[in-house]
Amino acid sequence: MKILVINGPNLNLLGEREPDKYGNNTYAQLCERIKKFCSEQNIEVEIYQSNIEGEIVTAIQDARNDFDGIVINPAGYTHTSVAVRDALLAVKIPAVEIHISNIQEREDFRKISLTAPACIGQIAGFGQNSYLLGIQALKDYLS
Amino acid sequence: MKILVINGPNLNLLGEREPDKYGNNTYAQLCERIKKFCSEQNIEVEIYQSNIEGEIVTAIQDARNDFDGIVINPAGYTHTSVAVRDALLAVKIPAVEIHISNIQEREDFRKISLTAPACIGQIAGFGQNSYLLGIQALKDYLS
Amino acid sequence: MKILVINGPNLNLLGEREPDKYGNNTYAQLCERIKKFCSEQNIEVEIYQSNIEGEIVTAIQDARNDFDGIVINPAGYTHTSVAVRDALLAVKIPAVEIHISNIQEREDFRKISLTAPACIGQIAGFGQNSYLLGIQALKDYLS
Amino acid sequence: MKILVINGPNLNLLGEREPDKYGNNTYAQLCERIKKFCSEQNIEVEIYQSNIEGEIVTAIQDARNDFDGIVINPAGYTHTSVAVRDALLAVKIPAVEIHISNIQEREDFRKISLTAPACIGQIAGFGQNSYLLGIQALKDYLS
Amino acid sequence: MKILVINGPNLNLLGEREPDKYGNNTYAQLCERIKKFCSEQNIEVEIYQSNIEGEIVTAIQDARNDFDGIVINPAGYTHTSVAVRDALLAVKIPAVEIHISNIQEREDFRKISLTAPACIGQIAGFGQNSYLLGIQALKDYLS
Amino acid sequence: MKILVINGPNLNLLGEREPDKYGNNTYAQLCERIKKFCSEQNIEVEIYQSNIEGEIVTAIQDARNDFDGIVINPAGYTHTSVAVRDALLAVKIPAVEIHISNIQEREDFRKISLTAPACIGQIAGFGQNSYLLGIQALKDYLS
Amino acid sequence: MKILVINGPNLNLLGEREPDKYGNNTYAQLCERIKKFCSEQNIEVEIYQSNIEGEIVTAIQDARNDFDGIVINPAGYTHTSVAVRDALLAVKIPAVEIHISNIQEREDFRKISLTAPACIGQIAGFGQNSYLLGIQALKDYLS
Amino acid sequence: MKILVINGPNLNLLGEREPDKYGNNTYAQLCERIKKFCSEQNIEVEIYQSNIEGEIVTAIQDARNDFDGIVINPAGYTHTSVAVRDALLAVKIPAVEIHISNIQEREDFRKISLTAPACIGQIAGFGQNSYLLGIQALKDYLS
Amino acid sequence: MKILVINGPNLNLLGEREPDKYGNNTYAQLCERIKKFCSEQNIEVEIYQSNIEGEIVTAIQDARNDFDGIVINPAGYTHTSVAVRDALLAVKIPAVEIHISNIQEREDFRKISLTAPACIGQIAGFGQNSYLLGIQALKDYLS
Amino acid sequence: MKILVINGPNLNLLGEREPDKYGNNTYAQLCERIKKFCSEQNIEVEIYQSNIEGEIVTAIQDARNDFDGIVINPAGYTHTSVAVRDALLAVKIPAVEIHISNIQEREDFRKISLTAPACIGQIAGFGQNSYLLGIQALKDYLS
Amino acid sequence: MKILVINGPNLNLLGEREPDKYGNNTYAQLCERIKKFCSEQNIEVEIYQSNIEGEIVTAIQDARNDFDGIVINPAGYTHTSVAVRDALLAVKIPAVEIHISNIQEREDFRKISLTAPACIGQIAGFGQNSYLLGIQALKDYLS
Amino acid sequence: MKILVINGPNLNLLGEREPDKYGNNTYAQLCERIKKFCSEQNIEVEIYQSNIEGEIVTAIQDARNDFDGIVINPAGYTHTSVAVRDALLAVKIPAVEIHISNIQEREDFRKISLTAPACIGQIAGFGQNSYLLGIQALKDYLS
Repeated sequence: MKILVINGPNLNLLGEREPDKYGNNTYAQLCERIKKFCSEQNIEVEIYQSNIEGEIVTAIQDARNDFDGIVINPAGYTHTSVAVRDALLAVKIPAVEIHISNIQEREDFRKISLTAPACIGQIAGFGQNSYLLGIQALKDYLS
Repeated sequence: MKILVINGPNLNLLGEREPDKYGNNTYAQLCERIKKFCSEQNIEVEIYQSNIEGEIVTAIQDARNDFDGIVINPAGYTHTSVAVRDALLAVKIPAVEIHISNIQEREDFRKISLTAPACIGQIAGFGQNSYLLGIQALKDYLS
Repeated sequence: MKILVINGPNLNLLGEREPDKYGNNTYAQLCERIKKFCSEQNIEVEIYQSNIEGEIVTAIQDARNDFDGIVINPAGYTHTSVAVRDALLAVKIPAVEIHISNIQEREDFRKISLTAPACIGQIAGFGQNSYLLGIQALKDYLS
Repeated sequence: MKILVINGPNLNLLGEREPDKYGNNTYAQLCERIKKFCSEQNIEVEIYQSNIEGEIVTAIQDARNDFDGIVINPAGYTHTSVAVRDALLAVKIPAVEIHISNIQEREDFRKISLTAPACIGQIAGFGQNSYLLGIQALKDYLS
Repeated sequence: MKILVINGPNLNLLGEREPDKYGNNTYAQLCERIKKFCSEQNIEVEIYQSNIEGEIVTAIQDARNDFDGIVINPAGYTHTSVAVRDALLAVKIPAVEIHISNIQEREDFRKISLTAPACIGQIAGFGQNSYLLGIQALKDYLS
Repeated sequence: MKILVINGPNLNLLGEREPDKYGNNTYAQLCERIKKFCSEQNIEVEIYQSNIEGEIVTAIQDARNDFDGIVINPAGYTHTSVAVRDALLAVKIPAVEIHISNIQEREDFRKISLTAPACIGQIAGFGQNSYLLGIQALKDYLS
Repeated sequence: MKILVINGPNLNLLGEREPDKYGNNTYAQLCERIKKFCSEQNIEVEIYQSNIEGEIVTAIQDARNDFDGIVINPAGYTHTSVAVRDALLAVKIPAVEIHISNIQEREDFRKISLTAPACIGQIAGFGQNSYLLGIQALKDYLS
Repeated sequence: MKILVINGPNLNLLGEREPDKYGNNTYAQLCERIKKFCSEQNIEVEIYQSNIEGEIVTAIQDARNDFDGIVINPAGYTHTSVAVRDALLAVKIPAVEIHISNIQEREDFRKISLTAPACIGQIAGFGQNSYLLGIQALKDYLS
Repeated sequence: MKILVINGPNLNLLGEREPDKYGNNTYAQLCERIKKFCSEQNIEVEIYQSNIEGEIVTAIQDARNDFDGIVINPAGYTHTSVAVRDALLAVKIPAVEIHISNIQEREDFRKISLTAPACIGQIAGFGQNSYLLGIQALKDYLS
Repeated sequence: MKILVINGPNLNLLGEREPDKYGNNTYAQLCERIKKFCSEQNIEVEIYQSNIEGEIVTAIQDARNDFDGIVINPAGYTHTSVAVRDALLAVKIPAVEIHISNIQEREDFRKISLTAPACIGQIAGFGQNSYLLGIQALKDYLS
Repeated sequence: MKILVINGPNLNLLGEREPDKYGNNTYAQLCERIKKFCSEQNIEVEIYQSNIEGEIVTAIQDARNDFDGIVINPAGYTHTSVAVRDALLAVKIPAVEIHISNIQEREDFRKISLTAPACIGQIAGFGQNSYLLGIQALKDYLS
Repeated sequence: MKILVINGPNLNLLGEREPDKYGNNTYAQLCERIKKFCSEQNIEVEIYQSNIEGEIVTAIQDARNDFDGIVINPAGYTHTSVAVRDALLAVKIPAVEIHISNIQEREDFRKISLTAPACIGQIAGFGQNSYLLGIQALKDYLS
């Protein structure tokens, strides 16, 4: 089993960025934690981050041949990107959308996800643990 | 660690109810699966189901003394119940909201949750596995 | 043929309650009229009333084994209850929604029914006669 | 007792038109069924169909001297015609609005009726049987 | 100076139609009153009434060669007819929109006029006198 | 017959103010024209102008003892003033609302009048002539 | 004079529940305070609390024979319950709606009350004192 | 204890103004009743009325040095005045908003108050008694 | 291959009607241009124009036996006609919707088409050339 | 170069009013700062403050003969005053709108300005410095 | 004549991507078809595809010197990109917007195009043939 | 003091792009003007332009170590980019949003800024001078 973790804009600043909302752990720590978890679960993982909407579209497209599934945190593009939604619909591998913060208790525009309907499900609010839960969910789905 | 799983209206009909949306496993099978999972995780669990909004409010209230956390699927009350939201806000133990189906890809009125802002997070779309992921998330949070 | 007539909140006060909107006949008179009509039509009938949303959900669920169809006046829950809608969708027996008053000429919030899309049809505005028309419609449908 | 049945646009294509929504019976069969039913009920009936909004307005106006009541399926004009609404309000004879399909489970714009508030009530969703139920309702009302 | 007065649907029922809103004077009396007023003002007048939206469109189109201006009461089409609006914009002669009732104090859908922006102005609420005021306004405009 | 003409904010700048919308005639010329017209019609008239919403409220209140009716151009307060609406409803003498420009073809916020429902009718779009038409309408109403 | 005080969901947790919004006094203290105040005012009082919407409906219905008036805090049902609204409209005794917090400065969905239009008035924002003011208001109304 | 009662536009016409909504007692009678009540309660009171929004703003500002609290009925400015809201927020003394009529059962635009969020609470629907209740509430709050 | 071109209201005034939006070529010139183009493409064509919504409905219905496809410019009925939409859905031959002007850059109400979802596609903004493009598109589709 | 600075309601309370939003400097300090800045820039300046919407309208009107431009902080009237907007449109001298706080991050109703479209531009969020920037902007524009 | 065809995100996956909506032909086949068509029409063509919004902006900008016109399928950016709209408005060469699917019969958010108002027209729903029709339309426009 | 000026999409076309809205000065001239102004003010400045949303996000992130503040014109991304907003919130250095045109008097979608709430303030409408005013405002803020 081989999965791709895709991170949207500003997630590279984790730890430094609004820590009351996104926590104190850095992006590097997140990557390590994901890799350790996947290794324990016998999952091969790659992690990709981009601030550019279209590069995320491309990453999703490219994943369709090399990966069994995607865990994606579209960050700011969650609420505005028809392009990311269409990319997720275009590829046949399953995706799980995750968010660090509980998007249902933030600004109104963060409550609606354009991308989640193109995923099998959504996990939000558990800090960096959302990633591990998303990987777990994807693994269970693929089994 | 002792948690309460609360199920809202019509979840007692799982397996029989719209199986294309909610799957073929029965409610009894769900309960068994939850209990087995909790037992493996060393979590004490009780499962409660009611079709009545106010009884769910009461169950949440009563849990505050005897449980460390709640996993709740408010079902139809997710989108309409200020009372359940207020109950979750009234008690100090953490709650995780879960849904069997991917509510973001269904009718518009199912996209907004009145209750999720009163929880630490939301997990939706992974069938009955959403419950296990929710329990996992709650356990990680409580640790 | 055996049907269940379900009445939502405040219908027990018929005759006494806003008579300009709901008429002067009492709830007892309505029940008698329904029973007489069903008897003439060779339909076995039971009548259930509750003010509690969740009890109506339960009544719909329970009807699925013992009845051929449902005639339901969800009253105040028509416009607010996802739970009743989901219950109607969960059972496989057909339902007819009826209203005593012409809900299309009242407050805006009464014009939209959350429950009617889960029924085969809706009849509204004919006073207590709406019940008899609903039973007739259900009988024709079941034949 | 003498009633007028008014049919709006495209109902003349019944049987041929979107049969999954409107059924397989033709308009001619509908007319026969209505006539047979009225004859059994000792009701004199005339049936009128037009695709033209203003002709339906005129038919409603003309009915006020020669008929005791109207059963109307305004079809596409249900949701857009202030003129038909005003015509129904202008004449003093009662009208019953009927629809073949369950308009509450279709497109959003079909859920609101501009014409129903000018009728005594609305019956929708019972296929061609909606007409017979409407005639029954009108007869009961006139008695 | 030669003007055309165009009346929309249901105005032919004046006197009989909802007299609390539209008054007790008949359509024949209105026509006489208009003719008498025009005669006094040295205005040549023709009066046209139709229940059919498209015939009103045609009447507006035809007026462009034979008349100096139009006084129009689009009645129910005021709020729904892009076609009448476009006809008024298509012809180069000026038009005055009038209404018998005060449309700003009625149902919300009557408060917005699709056709008034294609006229030089709007006069509403003065009963049948709105016609005479409209003719006066048109005459002043043309002078 | 004695009437009060009330002019809202910025009307004192007529002639100078956005002449493409409000014309080239000055406020003084308007006043003269109104006085001349009233004199010809045997109407006693007073003209009042204020830029202050509350002074317009007071002027309406004070008019109730000394005048038979009001012609009012609330200008910018038309669309925002509940206070002026309430003043018009508070006094028992009739009022006619007039506007120089055709408010239905301008910004969306100018299409709805809070004050017109408290008047007998509204006249808009005829330049300064709207005032004379309004006086005529009020005179006809009072007769 | 005999009145019924009805408390909606979660009010039984007063003192413990979100004390920054609802204060530190317990529900028991509230009940005592109400009883003491009524005793001083020579009012007979009963206090009822339920988390269940339909039980509140029933309590309102039952009050119509034994009480002169109702003071109700519908809590979470204020903004969602057509059933409670209809119950208040169904009984002929007057009701006063009260709220502990100032609902106009909270979430948007708390600003609109479905139940207040069925009461004689609403009092909100004065902490537990809102109850005493409501009882005072009801007493004055009944006198 | 010294309080200021501020009355917004048209309240000076009480008794004469729409008596079905605002009652038959005059403004003078209201003032007397307030003064008598305050005298009994050992409260020093001044009463101010203005039709002008900005004068009400000034009155609120001026009160901050000489009064312990404000009871305000902003009348028509309740729903439209950011300026009055800002004035209430600018001064540090507490205010209670009151309304004579039950604003929740009137036009939609009267249901939302821009000013209430700047007060400690709102009392509406009890006729002139709303003032006495408001004074009572303010006194209790200040104690 | 035989196609029907249907033109809605006011298109008969082309050349004369708002030439900045619809061009200077007359309706007769348009008809000639269409006929010449069809002749070159070996397509049999008939052209129909009506100002009446219901006649357009009838023309669509009648086309279903004699034509292979429809090119329709519903003009003003594009945005308001459920009846035309239903007619297009009722017949099994394909239709192409065309517009002379670029409806996406005009008034908001022209941006949404009720009829386009019942067509295979929409072409807008190319002046009279839109017709030729529509015929080309239909021919390609039918091949 | 001679400019007028106009301040709307509650700005006279600067320093005392919600200091977390508007700062600790008083209105007197603001006036001094403006005068000092203008003196340095060789600009003649007058400063006007009023709580009354209509007086601000008048001040704008009066400025048209004596000043080269206006810097205006309409405060609470920014979001509600068509009258101030119309006054700014009526005079031919340029205006710059300024705000002390960053109105785009406050309540929704503060995000839209009715008056800014009548100005050459808007400056918001820089505390009292917004005034100096506005004066600078106006000076640059006039040069 | 030299034109640029610009394709937005995910169009590179044609043939593989949601074939029920976008057809079975691959992107390579589309490019060939466009080139063949242009060659037959004596049009020089270049085809550009990018998943990145800003690169599409740049492509539009760069085209202004080297091409006579643009045919653009902005795909997912159609409904969200002010930047692409502004780019189309910034360059002086004409553009035609095309879509493979009939966007008017899909999700609501696909019905409105931010970019079409910056083009001369829009063609949607004809599969890959939309491109050829768009090129034809552009060629006719440029001639 | 060292600041970064960030320019969004299409600003590189200044001078050529819609000159009635954005002026005739080129982007090169703007850059020179900014540099000259900064040099005079003893501010070190760098200017960055990109058409790509994600590159602007990256530029904002990178600025946090090397610059004291940002002046940003997000252009088309102002109204659509949650990603840019989040980037501005993620870095701790202050930002000023500026616009060349007066966005409050343009299309509705340009009136709301997603990015301004993440800045200290906004300056709009002063042509290229907005940049200098923004730099001034930032300098004053940093001092």
